[in-house]
Amino acid sequence: MAPPPVVDIHTHLYPPPYLTLLSSRTSIPLVRTFPSSPHPRLILLETELPALELALRDPSAPLPGRPLTPAFTSIGEKLSFMAVHGITTSVMSLANPWLDFLGPAEAAAMAREVDGAFEEMCAAQKGKDRKLYFFAAPPLTAGIPALLEYLSELAGKYKHCRGIILGTSGLGLGLDDTSLLPIFHKLAALNLPVFLHPHYGLPPSVFGPRAETGEYGHVLPLALGFPMETTVAVARMYLAGVFDAVPALRMILAHSGGTLPFLAGRIESCVRHDGKLMGSGKKRGRTVWEVLREQVYLDAVVYSEVGLRAAVEASGVERLMFGTDHPFFPPVGEEEGAEVWDSVKLNVEAVEKALGKGSEEAGMVMGGNAARVLRLFDEEE
Amino acid sequence: MAPPPVVDIHTHLYPPPYLTLLSSRTSIPLVRTFPSSPHPRLILLETELPALELALRDPSAPLPGRPLTPAFTSIGEKLSFMAVHGITTSVMSLANPWLDFLGPAEAAAMAREVDGAFEEMCAAQKGKDRKLYFFAAPPLTAGIPALLEYLSELAGKYKHCRGIILGTSGLGLGLDDTSLLPIFHKLAALNLPVFLHPHYGLPPSVFGPRAETGEYGHVLPLALGFPMETTVAVARMYLAGVFDAVPALRMILAHSGGTLPFLAGRIESCVRHDGKLMGSGKKRGRTVWEVLREQVYLDAVVYSEVGLRAAVEASGVERLMFGTDHPFFPPVGEEEGAEVWDSVKLNVEAVEKALGKGSEEAGMVMGGNAARVLRLFDEEE
Repeated sequence: MAPPPVVDIHTHLYPPPYLTLLSSRTSIPLVRTFPSSPHPRLILLETELPALELALRDPSAPLPGRPLTPAFTSIGEKLSFMAVHGITTSVMSLANPWLDFLGPAEAAAMAREVDGAFEEMCAAQKGKDRKLYFFAAPPLTAGIPALLEYLSELAGKYKHCRGIILGTSGLGLGLDDTSLLPIFHKLAALNLPVFLHPHYGLPPSVFGPRAETGEYGHVLPLALGFPMETTVAVARMYLAGVFDAVPALRMILAHSGGTLPFLAGRIESCVRHDGKLMGSGKKRGRTVWEVLREQVYLDAVVYSEVGLRAAVEASGVERLMFGTDHPFFPPVGEEEGAEVWDSVKLNVEAVEKALGKGSEEAGMVMGGNAARVLRLFDEEE
Repeated sequence: MAPPPVVDIHTHLYPPPYLTLLSSRTSIPLVRTFPSSPHPRLILLETELPALELALRDPSAPLPGRPLTPAFTSIGEKLSFMAVHGITTSVMSLANPWLDFLGPAEAAAMAREVDGAFEEMCAAQKGKDRKLYFFAAPPLTAGIPALLEYLSELAGKYKHCRGIILGTSGLGLGLDDTSLLPIFHKLAALNLPVFLHPHYGLPPSVFGPRAETGEYGHVLPLALGFPMETTVAVARMYLAGVFDAVPALRMILAHSGGTLPFLAGRIESCVRHDGKLMGSGKKRGRTVWEVLREQVYLDAVVYSEVGLRAAVEASGVERLMFGTDHPFFPPVGEEEGAEVWDSVKLNVEAVEKALGKGSEEAGMVMGGNAARVLRLFDEEE
C-alpha cells in the first residue's frame, strides 16, 4: 500500500519569467547581484533601499535584502526539499508580492508567463512519484473584465491549477472593496479557492524605534505583522458581508488564519456589543464561528501545537492543511546548511503533538484534507 | 463553608478626580454634556473630534463618543454589577488612557488623587462581603526619579494596591525603551506586578477606508487593534531582553495576552530563523514559551473556550485569571438594559467549557489564582 500523501499547500517559487522581471526593475521589488555575494539579493521592502544604495556604492557594506538562493527559483531544489522532508505533493504559489506592483498590461502578460511556467513544471512530473499543483497568480491590476476573463480561462488552460493566491490589498483598497465582489462570485462559480497570503504587514512605526534600526531582525513584521494583516483582511471581508454575499467562496488562510482562531471570540463579542452594528432593525448574517466552519480553510503553518489545537477547534480538523512556507525560514546560525529544516520540523511536530503521531486526524491535516479540498489526484494526468 | 472567591482582575473605573479632570479639558480625552443626552459623553479618539464639533454646533447631530454611564464612575454601580454576576472581589484599575496625556506636575498630582480615591473605595468595604483592591496608575510622565519614588511609596500608602496598570507607550517610546529598566527593576523589587493594557491600537489606515467611515462601528480597533497592540508591546520587551534582565518582573497581560498564546510559536520560530539574531556568537536568553510560563500571567478575557484553552496551554492553568472588562461592552441592541451582561457570560462560559464547570481548574481561573498571585485576603483589613 502506498504511504498516505503528505501535501504541502504553502510553498512558494519565483519561476524564471518573474525572476527576469525582478532583475530588470529599478524600484522594489527587485533583484541585484553583487560581486561579494554567491547569490543574487532580493529587495522587497522600501526600508531596505538605503542599504541597497550603500551596497552599490561601497563593496564592503553589508548586503541588502536577502539571498535569493536556488531554493527560491529552482524546481529541482523544490523537489529535493520535498524528498528530504517526505512531502509527496506540493501546491505551489508565486511568492509575494505577486503581480500587485505591475501596471495593467504588464500584469496580464506576466500572469500568463508565470502561470504557464507553473503549469509546465507540474506537467513535467507526469509519471513521477512526487506531484505538483499550483495556485495561479491573477493579474489584479489588469481591470475587472480582464481579470474575470483570466479566471474563466484558468481551468481550461492549466490542468494543475487548483485556485489562486491573493494578497490582502486586492485591487488596492482591501478585500472589503465592493468592486471585488464579481471576482469573488466568479471564483466561487469556478470552484477555485483563494489562498490568502500576507505581504504588506503593519506600518513600521507600530514596532517602534528599536525595530526600525534593525535591532530585532525581521522578527516583528514577520511574526506579528503578517498574521495581523491576514486577520484584518478576513475580518474586513466578514464585516462587509462578503461571506454571506458569496456563500460558495472558499478561502484558505495562510499561517492558520493569522490570529483568527484565537481572536474569533473577541471579534464575535465586539460585533455583538457594538451599538452601530446591533442597533434596532439591524440584521446580522452568520457568526464569525459559522463562517470559519463553512467557508474557511486554514493552513497548519503555526509552529506550535498550542496554535494548531486552537485552529483545529475553530474551524474543524477537516479544514486544516499542512504547509511549510518553503523556501522561507531556512536553517540559519549554527544550523545553516542543515538538510532537514527546523521550520518544517516545528510544523510537523505541532500536528503530531496536537493530534497524535500517525493518527487518522494527523493524516487528514498532513494530506488527506488537501487531497479532498483541492481535488488532487482526481485523474491520472 | 464560604463559596470559593470569584475575582475580577480586569475591571475599570474613572474615580471622581479623574472625571473632573476630563470635564475640564479642551483636547482628548475629554468629557462633555449635551442637553439631548442623559449621560455625559466620553471622547477618547482624535477621529471623534469632528463629530464633537458638529454636535456642539448642531443639537440635532448624532452624539459623539460614548455615553459615560454611572457604571464608568460610580463605585455603587461597580458593587451592584459584582453582586449580579456573583463576583466576590474586584481588582480595579483606572480605565485608559490613564495619565499618559498629562504633563509632569499634573500627572504626579493626579496619580495621588486617583490612587487615593481608589484606596478610599477599597477601605470602605471593610467588614463587608465584597472586597475591592486596585492597580495603581503611576505618573509615567513625571520623570524617572519622581516615578521611582511614587512606586516606592505605593505599598506603604495604600493597603489595597496590588500592582500597577501600564499602557504600551511607557514613557513614550514603548516598553522596550531602556529608560524603563529602572522602573521594571523597582516594580520587581517591590513585588508589584504590571497589568499591561492596550489603548493606542493600530494606525486607522490598517483597517481600510470602510472602517474609517465608521461602517464597522468600533469592531476592528477593539477586536484586533487592542490585542495586537498588547502582543507587539510584549514581543518588543522580549526581543529587548527585558524579561531576562529583570527576571523577577511579573506582567499580567490583558485579553489573554492579546494574541501571544497563538503567535508564540511563530515568534519563537521567527527568532530561531533570523540570521541577525542567531548569527555566530549571538547568545539567546530564554524562549518565548519559558517567559510565558515564568513571568507572565494572562487574564481570561478572551470570549471563547478556543482562545482560553490556548491561553491555558501557553502559560499554564495556574497563571490565568478571570476578568470582565467592566464597564466596557454593556448589553446593546435588543439586550440593552439587561441586568446580566452577555460579555461577562461569554467569559464565564469560556472557562466552564475549557476547564469543566465547577472543576478545580475552573476555580483556579475564576479566583484562586488571583487570590494567590495578588495576595488577596492575606490579612483582615
